Amino acid sequence: MAAWSSEVGEGPLARRLLDIPVVLFRRDDGSVVALHDRCPHRFAPLHMGRFADGQVECAYHGLRFDSAGACVHNPAGETIPPQAKVRTFPVHERHHILWIWMGEAALADPDRIADLSCIPEDPGECANIGNHLHVRANYLLEIDNLMDLSHVNYLHRGTLGNDSMRGHKVNVHEENGAIHADLWMPGTIAPIYSALFGRPCDQWTNIVWMAPSAMRLDYGAVPPGAPAVQQPEDVAVHILTPETERTTHYFYGTCGVFGPEQRELAEMIRTAQTAAFVTEDNPMIEAVDERMEGAELWSLRPAILSSDVASVRVRREIEKMIRRENRSESAAEGNVESAVA
Amino acid sequence: MAAWSSEVGEGPLARRLLDIPVVLFRRDDGSVVALHDRCPHRFAPLHMGRFADGQVECAYHGLRFDSAGACVHNPAGETIPPQAKVRTFPVHERHHILWIWMGEAALADPDRIADLSCIPEDPGECANIGNHLHVRANYLLEIDNLMDLSHVNYLHRGTLGNDSMRGHKVNVHEENGAIHADLWMPGTIAPIYSALFGRPCDQWTNIVWMAPSAMRLDYGAVPPGAPAVQQPEDVAVHILTPETERTTHYFYGTCGVFGPEQRELAEMIRTAQTAAFVTEDNPMIEAVDERMEGAELWSLRPAILSSDVASVRVRREIEKMIRRENRSESAAEGNVESAVA
Amino acid sequence: MAAWSSEVGEGPLARRLLDIPVVLFRRDDGSVVALHDRCPHRFAPLHMGRFADGQVECAYHGLRFDSAGACVHNPAGETIPPQAKVRTFPVHERHHILWIWMGEAALADPDRIADLSCIPEDPGECANIGNHLHVRANYLLEIDNLMDLSHVNYLHRGTLGNDSMRGHKVNVHEENGAIHADLWMPGTIAPIYSALFGRPCDQWTNIVWMAPSAMRLDYGAVPPGAPAVQQPEDVAVHILTPETERTTHYFYGTCGVFGPEQRELAEMIRTAQTAAFVTEDNPMIEAVDERMEGAELWSLRPAILSSDVASVRVRREIEKMIRRENRSESAAEGNVESAVA
Repeated sequence: MAAWSSEVGEGPLARRLLDIPVVLFRRDDGSVVALHDRCPHRFAPLHMGRFADGQVECAYHGLRFDSAGACVHNPAGETIPPQAKVRTFPVHERHHILWIWMGEAALADPDRIADLSCIPEDPGECANIGNHLHVRANYLLEIDNLMDLSHVNYLHRGTLGNDSMRGHKVNVHEENGAIHADLWMPGTIAPIYSALFGRPCDQWTNIVWMAPSAMRLDYGAVPPGAPAVQQPEDVAVHILTPETERTTHYFYGTCGVFGPEQRELAEMIRTAQTAAFVTEDNPMIEAVDERMEGAELWSLRPAILSSDVASVRVRREIEKMIRRENRSESAAEGNVESAVA
Repeated sequence: MAAWSSEVGEGPLARRLLDIPVVLFRRDDGSVVALHDRCPHRFAPLHMGRFADGQVECAYHGLRFDSAGACVHNPAGETIPPQAKVRTFPVHERHHILWIWMGEAALADPDRIADLSCIPEDPGECANIGNHLHVRANYLLEIDNLMDLSHVNYLHRGTLGNDSMRGHKVNVHEENGAIHADLWMPGTIAPIYSALFGRPCDQWTNIVWMAPSAMRLDYGAVPPGAPAVQQPEDVAVHILTPETERTTHYFYGTCGVFGPEQRELAEMIRTAQTAAFVTEDNPMIEAVDERMEGAELWSLRPAILSSDVASVRVRREIEKMIRRENRSESAAEGNVESAVA
Repeated sequence: MAAWSSEVGEGPLARRLLDIPVVLFRRDDGSVVALHDRCPHRFAPLHMGRFADGQVECAYHGLRFDSAGACVHNPAGETIPPQAKVRTFPVHERHHILWIWMGEAALADPDRIADLSCIPEDPGECANIGNHLHVRANYLLEIDNLMDLSHVNYLHRGTLGNDSMRGHKVNVHEENGAIHADLWMPGTIAPIYSALFGRPCDQWTNIVWMAPSAMRLDYGAVPPGAPAVQQPEDVAVHILTPETERTTHYFYGTCGVFGPEQRELAEMIRTAQTAAFVTEDNPMIEAVDERMEGAELWSLRPAILSSDVASVRVRREIEKMIRRENRSESAAEGNVESAVA
């Protein structure tokens, strides 16, 4: 994922993805273009340029490039040199998200985009999507965090978790390449809901990872014994894209439809999500990254627990994808972790 | 030295020592424990956890460790994996100081702790100990600074030193492994004392280094010809512990007993010490470290003067200790400069 | 170029040049001395010391050095050790500039100093020289910027450049080792002048590079057909000295004589020059340096245009000088890019 659709409007968006500077902008027909954010002439960032008619004019010496990265104007007048070409990245807009493929263009395949159809086509004027945070940690530490929700009862004790929610067995299974970790916690204190219902609840957190780094988290709480019906506004999405080896773009939101009359509810959910992340998860994940000092997880020989099963399976899956891509692109360069971001 | 005793009270103290993150805390019996500040599960800093009953519960996923570093609770329920073990460091509390051994635990030997018995058992309510500063320089540059007090008459000219104190011959000698540098300056202007006595004084600065990096500095000034009696409040201690290769913990204080009625005197001494360090020594030592750009001293071929004798002997002694320890621990890793810190 | 003459007055000037810390100061006869800014004893920065009688006394332990870098006083009293010697750099003061030679002293040759005789001997009380800015970019990117003035009509569009000035052919030629790039723009909108004259002008920008990194830029605008007479206050100088591999000292000014009655004009020119640099050139050049991530230009295979001819010739010339110097000094160390700075 490069960005939320809403992040690229009239103007361009400059963002580093997989350690490559990228500039995203819209053509007149609304479709989005992603270019290497570096002019091939003197290496000026293209996002500083002028954007019009689906073209960008470099701010430094005026070379113009079209949305295919071809130079269409050389202000020095003569023939356009063959090096005057900007790398483009395939972009596909789906579910209010701009998906980018940073690997070999020919291998881009929209069918491999994570299924986030849980985000409604029209999420309403007050939709709780479009959130973005910057994290100083490797993206895999974020995935580890989300795929082992046992941390909720320690790191978020008193806010999202509590003692009654501990010790329940997680059910990990795979379905069409997606890895699920389902947790069923009958008769436990549910944040907010137990206060609403005045008693313990049957609650659940079912999270599913979809390659390479999108997660959907279904949460719910009902009075004990009542049918466990999933409310759409309790479905959250968490998508992570490496900015660099040790920094990450974190995109998140929830899937309900929030019209003007749900403005307050939407704000409450957004605020709670953001607060948990900014004050609890983020400081911990960044502290872990610092303690690991850039080392690869396995080289530090972590003590693996049964609660790590899902996160370890996801890591193994990602490692497999990287190996597979490296093989198929072995002649190309810069292809590490270049899966659909 | 890891810390002053007073720095570890109810809560834990997190501190990087010899480039290893360490967390110190007290058991219920008051004894101090030092653990590697990194959970072996997912590498969270343990100091962010909960401390109770001589145990720490990791803030991330709730693993609990006892003061021997053994995992005593796995929240995921099953057997405790053998990797779930935290490294501990032997700590010995003596003379209001927490001494830590960062090398192989079996080699820890309290008999090798520097003799700082000059610090009184009960230094009084207003004692001038417990001071700590952070320096952006290699610790050996601090030792060089202290073991060549000829710098006092240049760097501290007008505050601690002056022209009359220059040119006196330092007497360097070794005693039981401690290296002494004694300076006798008869009939010279003594800071403060000459103003008190209204005339030049016989003054002295006798400094002794004790392995690996503790120094005791006896200072005194008396009317010419009077017996050179050492006042305990003119005995200072300076102890240095590497934080990283190029940053240092600097601990300092003086040895007199300061009761409530000496509050002002104690404050005056503390302020003068700190001011000299912060405004004169520290900027110079950090500038030297910057100029050396991380190079080892000898590789830069310094011009060595007779005033360098003591500091060079100390450096040679430390180099010998490191070689000796590397030999005895050659199978272990991470043992460079791991002498009693 | 180490500094403007005016930068070294009563006190010393400390400045990093070609990644070597240098301290400049004046002898009693006004001549300037450049020493390695590092005491050979314990590596204190000499600029922190006391300067008197053409000597410097180190602030740390009091060693004194004369303007030839020889130790003339050892406070420890005995013979002066042979290592107690500070490296000196030949300095030549000409055209209000302190030129320094950072290479092998024997090869210093004032005849190779760039001809900046355009700066008047007495530039007046309000002279627009003496300007200095710090840039976070390799110095060659600055030279590229100046030697391809086609950027004026894009990067400075609306201030120094405009559409009418585009597309004119630059005339590049060499004269006695200096590389000229002359641009003649007849009947075009000239900033300021067209407003003064109420019509398009014949205008020109003739820039000349002199080794290793001084440029003189002759600008002018006259009513169409009028003789193209060069006004001295429209002659600018731009001189660049590497501070480190990726930071640069940028010295600039203009050559007219500005007496007290030209104070406002001088200020206007200085402000316009500085504003263009600080708000337009500098952000772009630093962004380019960031995008290049320390890579050498050619390794990135830039698309070279006809407008690059002059800057490429200058780069080739500098590369030749560096190779030549490396050969002649092959036994010496630290000689990369050590041409007259």
